[in-house]
Amino acid sequence: MNTIQSDNYPVFFENSIDELVKFIEQGHYSRFFILTDENTAEHCLPLVKSKVEHLDNFDIIEINAGEESKDIDFCIGVWRMLIDFGADRKSLLVNLGGGVISDLGGFAASTFKRGIDFVHVPTTLLSQVDASVGGKTGIDINSIKNIIGTFTQPKAVFINLGFLETLPPRQILSGLAEMLKHGLIQDAAYWHQLKASDLTIPSAQLVHRSVEIKNKITIEDPHEKGIRKALNFGHTIGHAVETDSLINDKDPLSHGEAIAIGMICESYLAHKKTGLPAEELQEITETLNKLYPRYTIKQSDFDTLLEIMKKDKKNQNGNINCTLLTNIGQCNIDNNCTEAELCDSLLYYINL
Amino acid sequence: MNTIQSDNYPVFFENSIDELVKFIEQGHYSRFFILTDENTAEHCLPLVKSKVEHLDNFDIIEINAGEESKDIDFCIGVWRMLIDFGADRKSLLVNLGGGVISDLGGFAASTFKRGIDFVHVPTTLLSQVDASVGGKTGIDINSIKNIIGTFTQPKAVFINLGFLETLPPRQILSGLAEMLKHGLIQDAAYWHQLKASDLTIPSAQLVHRSVEIKNKITIEDPHEKGIRKALNFGHTIGHAVETDSLINDKDPLSHGEAIAIGMICESYLAHKKTGLPAEELQEITETLNKLYPRYTIKQSDFDTLLEIMKKDKKNQNGNINCTLLTNIGQCNIDNNCTEAELCDSLLYYINL
Repeated sequence: MNTIQSDNYPVFFENSIDELVKFIEQGHYSRFFILTDENTAEHCLPLVKSKVEHLDNFDIIEINAGEESKDIDFCIGVWRMLIDFGADRKSLLVNLGGGVISDLGGFAASTFKRGIDFVHVPTTLLSQVDASVGGKTGIDINSIKNIIGTFTQPKAVFINLGFLETLPPRQILSGLAEMLKHGLIQDAAYWHQLKASDLTIPSAQLVHRSVEIKNKITIEDPHEKGIRKALNFGHTIGHAVETDSLINDKDPLSHGEAIAIGMICESYLAHKKTGLPAEELQEITETLNKLYPRYTIKQSDFDTLLEIMKKDKKNQNGNINCTLLTNIGQCNIDNNCTEAELCDSLLYYINL
Repeated sequence: MNTIQSDNYPVFFENSIDELVKFIEQGHYSRFFILTDENTAEHCLPLVKSKVEHLDNFDIIEINAGEESKDIDFCIGVWRMLIDFGADRKSLLVNLGGGVISDLGGFAASTFKRGIDFVHVPTTLLSQVDASVGGKTGIDINSIKNIIGTFTQPKAVFINLGFLETLPPRQILSGLAEMLKHGLIQDAAYWHQLKASDLTIPSAQLVHRSVEIKNKITIEDPHEKGIRKALNFGHTIGHAVETDSLINDKDPLSHGEAIAIGMICESYLAHKKTGLPAEELQEITETLNKLYPRYTIKQSDFDTLLEIMKKDKKNQNGNINCTLLTNIGQCNIDNNCTEAELCDSLLYYINL
């Protein structure tokens, strides 16, 4: 499994934790800090700790698991810990966890003393195929996702597929949504390969391919001026559904579950607006609907969802833009969608 | 008065507010926001407002005046206002005020939706000669100055010397300290010119020269890996005294007052360590001591001051580094100073 070269940093797939140790040792950092949550502290930290225990210049920063921890208040907590632990500009932050850890940790590090080095050790499928490359960091305010953040690249990413074995099936499914998206926007063969695979734990080769696709797009357009918007497929509606669920549901949707709904709705919009053939809409709808649990959206929620979409940083001047497929494996960015069209697509999902 | 070209952005000195209006109109921003404090709202905003009132796509964000407003809580307030006002990625933030406004506004803008455009309209002498160029943004946590921030350049800077007439003498003196520093670290002729000038309101030509010096240094070394550290002269000790005063004094020192103390102490260190001649130490000490009010530092404060210096982001591994003069107009960076030496230099100030 090749190491993928991203924007000036490597993404390791083989012996990743050993590579991490080598990286830390060769980096001559004054100190390093492992940011983790209660889940990774239990399932992933022991392995990492066993490999770095000969080093004595590190501390652990543990936060609660879950999207709530991406709030600015937790970020302030991380900054305070770094201050208290005496972190200086030559310190390193190791983000050991899922997307919350890498987004929050990346933001905290990129702004602490105007920027210290950080690396990602993504432990969930979602963070391995999505948050690990691309250089986006972000935190939430008032449950508005990633409203605050920077574009800052990690110094390296270490993907250890062994960590996936510790994940509940629902978390695997969450990451899978992004992998399916990679196929839908860029690589029809990969989409078909995914459909034909055992997806209980995706193979190393599939994970590698997803990172390759995302990496290629984000290197081409790091600041999302153009082609990177392809990655927003399913996310205009999906993010809104996710945010709303996070606020209102006792057991909120996972990111992937929300994005799967978004991809169904936006495929419907694509069929109406950018010529996605009816049989491909059906293929996408059936595949996603079979993989992901049904979710109840009420027509009385539409106004709230539209409000969230308008506040989404992807949108300007109150216009709502979507990335829409033209075919499986190809897409079109910046499609302005009216509120009526968006409601229509939500109705399509509701009536399935 | 030439427009100075900085790192991909212009610094205007002539007809600056008209240039600002032109910049906004030509930038095709969806909206713009003027960040101001209660003082600039009274003294500077009316002029700006009178020139932009034909535009209807702006809002005012006003915060309290003073360093306390640089705290993360105020930054969250600015982010919340931007959200509530519907700011999108094509919005512009106009930072109208002193260093607090430009540092805080720069940080808020550089991280809002992963970065929106911002410009500075510095209204104090200090912010005109210091914060306006160089691309540092920053906020405080627990009164630790600029502990959080980014390196992000504004899109333009508009220096209107007319604003200086609205300032109390103490604020002029605060900015003057940085101008004197520019002479001391880089340009002996400028130092002598400043000494010989009426400094009640420094002339446009003097302000222009200070911006030139700072701009040249920061373009050469934007991320403070080397020569930019020259600008830290007086700031290792000065920042500590300022932080301590901010926490403990009812009427805290201004930035310039603290830096003047720092420059006296660090000139003493320079005399001891990097060969600053005794007569130049005396010249610097007398000049600064005459311009700036005496301040009481007690020996019982030394431990606190040293603790603050160790936490300063300029320092690593608990070592305390200073930029020290070799002659007036020349300096040497990265001089490790022991706690005994630093205490000695504080005693030098105390015993003047």
